[in-house]
Amino acid sequence: MNTEKKIFDISPVRYREGKLYLLDQTRLPGEEVYIEIKTKEDMWDAIYKLKVRGAPAIGVAAAYGLYVEASRYSGTSVIEFTDYVEESADYLETARPTAVNLAWALRRMKQKLKEAGIATVQEGRDLLLEEAQAIHDEDVKACRSMGEYGLSLLEPEMGILTHCNAGTIATARYGTCLAPIYLGQERGYNFRVFADETRPLLQGARLTSWELDKAGVDVTLICDNMAASVMKKGWVDAVVVGCDRMAANGDGANKIGTSAVAILAKEYGIPFYMYVPTSTIDMETLSGEDIEIELRKGEEIYRMWYEKPMAPAGIKTYNPSFDVTDHKYITAVITEKGIVRPPYDINLKKIMEKK
Amino acid sequence: MNTEKKIFDISPVRYREGKLYLLDQTRLPGEEVYIEIKTKEDMWDAIYKLKVRGAPAIGVAAAYGLYVEASRYSGTSVIEFTDYVEESADYLETARPTAVNLAWALRRMKQKLKEAGIATVQEGRDLLLEEAQAIHDEDVKACRSMGEYGLSLLEPEMGILTHCNAGTIATARYGTCLAPIYLGQERGYNFRVFADETRPLLQGARLTSWELDKAGVDVTLICDNMAASVMKKGWVDAVVVGCDRMAANGDGANKIGTSAVAILAKEYGIPFYMYVPTSTIDMETLSGEDIEIELRKGEEIYRMWYEKPMAPAGIKTYNPSFDVTDHKYITAVITEKGIVRPPYDINLKKIMEKK
Repeated sequence: MNTEKKIFDISPVRYREGKLYLLDQTRLPGEEVYIEIKTKEDMWDAIYKLKVRGAPAIGVAAAYGLYVEASRYSGTSVIEFTDYVEESADYLETARPTAVNLAWALRRMKQKLKEAGIATVQEGRDLLLEEAQAIHDEDVKACRSMGEYGLSLLEPEMGILTHCNAGTIATARYGTCLAPIYLGQERGYNFRVFADETRPLLQGARLTSWELDKAGVDVTLICDNMAASVMKKGWVDAVVVGCDRMAANGDGANKIGTSAVAILAKEYGIPFYMYVPTSTIDMETLSGEDIEIELRKGEEIYRMWYEKPMAPAGIKTYNPSFDVTDHKYITAVITEKGIVRPPYDINLKKIMEKK
Repeated sequence: MNTEKKIFDISPVRYREGKLYLLDQTRLPGEEVYIEIKTKEDMWDAIYKLKVRGAPAIGVAAAYGLYVEASRYSGTSVIEFTDYVEESADYLETARPTAVNLAWALRRMKQKLKEAGIATVQEGRDLLLEEAQAIHDEDVKACRSMGEYGLSLLEPEMGILTHCNAGTIATARYGTCLAPIYLGQERGYNFRVFADETRPLLQGARLTSWELDKAGVDVTLICDNMAASVMKKGWVDAVVVGCDRMAANGDGANKIGTSAVAILAKEYGIPFYMYVPTSTIDMETLSGEDIEIELRKGEEIYRMWYEKPMAPAGIKTYNPSFDVTDHKYITAVITEKGIVRPPYDINLKKIMEKK
């Protein structure tokens, strides 16, 4: 099927016939370039420089990257090989120390090797490839599952607004909050999507509108401050967003601006759906107040994308990366295990315990 | 007083010792350049290319521009002179046909000349300069008056959020919604101002943060989608915005994004003040639904300010210039004649009838 092919064509991590490729997301949307990853240094650099981004995609990429590096070991000692893999994993983990999925995927790879009791180096290599592919497949499956649950909340011809990029290129495939849009596209739902550009780094303009357009989805790019206007027009039937970390009470941290969209959605009576893989739900964090918000440099606001100065040099800025959407604005939380409705303090606990 | 001098130094229209200068706002904030206006063609170009912008500033500039052109008439015939002035005025009006204040100021200049029954060309010239200065002085006075009324609603040390630019450089001086901030600054109020950058044309980043910073006001530039975060932090005690057109029921059209700020302010219990000179209140327009919203080109969103493409080429966009803030979100309307509170349908009528 044509659409199917299109979506597949923009997977951010590709392993084919012994070669690993990453879509260089820093060059989007101007250029669509896949770079080959041949060493752990290549992979470290790609993660560090955000050539691959999005927690799930980083995990998948790192797993394959570790396998690629392991393949470079030319000796025959199983002990030496295992050490080599462990050291490489530890090195890769330093590329983005705070990325939860990076550490998780590398830990899983190391553990697999450790527990298997391999007899030969080749056996070890095969095991690592198998595990990387498993991580990859599981992510695709989780996204697809979120997509199916999410789609059950939507109707054909709906207008859907999204913020930032929680799409195909942030995961192994389908994305989290964009998954229902792709599944709907495959089934002829004819969604009409509004993509907030998402200042300051423009993930919505650069990435979301790019990947949806490429998949043939009807997408309209708007500035963040236009969301209220399209809602008031009656063009938005649902809001779908991703999540970087959800607290036990259902407060969800996501890209800056998400909470404003949620408040506007409530004001206009539009359901607001947050897509949250269970790996992103942190039951140790009681509420959004306990989530620390990363502050970034002002240059991102007044310099990064501009050829002429668009604010006075050295102007004071406040540039938080994320904001926390209070659980009271969230209509439902979509996980790969099912849809969670309020009260979140009770129902998130239940979904976490579900097999 | 030092602050006084600073604010004066950035007046957008300057007439001094027979010479007319405009601050070229298209070169802000990178360069602070005053260009001399010697002919009606110079002025037409400046208005057309937005070198001078903001309804009140355009009116003042055009009035002086007409005087400058009138001074170029070298004959002695009063009739010929009057025709020359009228033709010049009609020409200037075409620079931005929809700018209400432009037509209004030029009409006023023509009428003055017509009604005066001048005996010599010199007398006519003097009259035009006098009228231009009167228009200038009245605008300063109206802004100052709005500033005083507005200031009565604020307390020292308050945090104030604003959107777009309704400041000094959009008027003859002080601005509309920034007037209370400048008056407060002169009186040691120590306001802490948050300026929304105001996508897509960045008037908040380029103009508001520039002029406030220059006047020594504590200003922090944020992206539009960060307003909810600073409100949630408790940093904002009041929102002040300008208005492009207010309907008889109090619905106010202003720069795109204003209505979202109003909804967020309501959600966080923050008063939302709209600064509206009575010339901007259109009693013939019954509600915001009757206000037509200008749609602009997508290039403004994805190309204008960027050195590299930040959205796919040819992506569909929706780019409204303005949105309408429903009167239910407006705590008070500040005019030069006083403060208007709900119910607006009754109280706007009263203020319009007030001398």
